[in-house]
Amino acid sequence: MKTLRDIGEDELIRRVVRLVPTGLGAGEAPGDDCAVVDSGGDRLLLLKTDALVEGVHYEKSADPEAVGWKAVARLFSDFAAMGGEGERFMVTLALPGSMELAWVEGLYAGMGKCLREFGATLAGGETCRVPEGSAAVVSVSATGSVKRGQVVLRSGGKAGDEIWVTGKLGGSLAGRHLSFSPRVKEGLWLAGHAGVTAMMDLSDGLAKDLPRLAEASGCGFEILRDALPLNPGCTVDQALGDGEDFELLFTVPAGTGFDAAWNAGFPELGISRVGVLTATGEGEKLRGGWDHFGA
Amino acid sequence: MKTLRDIGEDELIRRVVRLVPTGLGAGEAPGDDCAVVDSGGDRLLLLKTDALVEGVHYEKSADPEAVGWKAVARLFSDFAAMGGEGERFMVTLALPGSMELAWVEGLYAGMGKCLREFGATLAGGETCRVPEGSAAVVSVSATGSVKRGQVVLRSGGKAGDEIWVTGKLGGSLAGRHLSFSPRVKEGLWLAGHAGVTAMMDLSDGLAKDLPRLAEASGCGFEILRDALPLNPGCTVDQALGDGEDFELLFTVPAGTGFDAAWNAGFPELGISRVGVLTATGEGEKLRGGWDHFGA
Repeated sequence: MKTLRDIGEDELIRRVVRLVPTGLGAGEAPGDDCAVVDSGGDRLLLLKTDALVEGVHYEKSADPEAVGWKAVARLFSDFAAMGGEGERFMVTLALPGSMELAWVEGLYAGMGKCLREFGATLAGGETCRVPEGSAAVVSVSATGSVKRGQVVLRSGGKAGDEIWVTGKLGGSLAGRHLSFSPRVKEGLWLAGHAGVTAMMDLSDGLAKDLPRLAEASGCGFEILRDALPLNPGCTVDQALGDGEDFELLFTVPAGTGFDAAWNAGFPELGISRVGVLTATGEGEKLRGGWDHFGA
Repeated sequence: MKTLRDIGEDELIRRVVRLVPTGLGAGEAPGDDCAVVDSGGDRLLLLKTDALVEGVHYEKSADPEAVGWKAVARLFSDFAAMGGEGERFMVTLALPGSMELAWVEGLYAGMGKCLREFGATLAGGETCRVPEGSAAVVSVSATGSVKRGQVVLRSGGKAGDEIWVTGKLGGSLAGRHLSFSPRVKEGLWLAGHAGVTAMMDLSDGLAKDLPRLAEASGCGFEILRDALPLNPGCTVDQALGDGEDFELLFTVPAGTGFDAAWNAGFPELGISRVGVLTATGEGEKLRGGWDHFGA
């Protein structure tokens, strides 16, 4: 019998999505940072769900406030990658009965801090018990919205578009994966002012995420390895493969010079041109990055 | 140090909700079957999250299609209890890498069946790995909506209102907890036609859920034990305490005679008057029902 480890996350999604009604319109596909729902108003509804698992996404010894921050910040990062904003969050905790109350209160304090920082609220939640010895699971889902006409998908890139990233990459496990700042105002600005054609956030590493963006856009890609913005002490391989950078990966038509306006508006956060989209079948292949069911 | 088992689910929620911004208006409180969001249209947005844990809510040997049905049907039951309907669902799976693909495909097939039956879609999802030996967690969240003016909260009951339930109670563990039919059209009808003052679904058992409804309404209650509708082979204690009935518990002003119209509209599903709301501090106490962190 095949297991999840045998097939990996992307193949799993391809298989199971056929088994459920998705309500997708012609040409739409699942797999963007958020689901987009058009209910006819001047804003589109965004939906996202995500989870942190003890022993996988954080260590049991980690500061619960940092875990709470991360659990919520990951979703703000996804909304930003669509050019939108998170609004109402829901939290489901699956915890053993022996879990200390103080840990859960710390978790909520961290979630509260992040929700306040980015102007959203907790609308609901559920707590349930896992058997003793099982990993705790912190599952967060949220609604958000994006101005009609300003939504940015992964699928809008064209051959010849420049590939850019915000900030620096690699080495997140040293601590940044628990304390990162989601690029909320940056994503809004990019969607509104930079002529961005495709965007996503870097959660599984450039080596895993760029091929996803390129495939969704029907393109190949070439990376400028020398141009990758490395966090201090990191190698190119780490920048490609470590994951959990939570920076924005986006494409713009060649030669717009949008970066001058960016540098004026966001002097403290660098951006780097790291490659180019090519015609499909051309360009290079990348290996590595984080697979959720990898061995 | 206090643990979750020491304080139980309701006390946990009271403590942590103070730590996060909730965006609740004056007089609103968390803890209804769904969160209600008023964005100004002619329908109110409903939000809900829930989860099933292997070894707690279903056995590892259970039919995965039935587990998938249950995971989604529970939320339809919550939307029905508000007088609303579920619309867009998201699923987060936390599974060990050794999980068989066939099990996950069965799970999705069951979710798909329930989504089709009640006219909703899957808008997104996330899969992540738990360490080997940890329980699988199936976390489902969803948006729904309810006609403005037709939303039913737990808090609208008045002393003197009659307490009713749909269907029969008790014995869900014999199998019904995996195959129940959420009372979707029944909840819609009750909210629209019966003058219902408060409503919730019976997930943790009448002994746990009725005190919640009464407290939210600022009332006490008295139960008519002889009138409890028992599933075949069940005792009154089972009807009070087993939980996972997923029937609707609701209150109506005394003497409206709405049940004649109900019986004409829903000849196959009985309803029973099982008690009365009293002034707060009067009435009786109930013990039992399902606590998620109970020993």
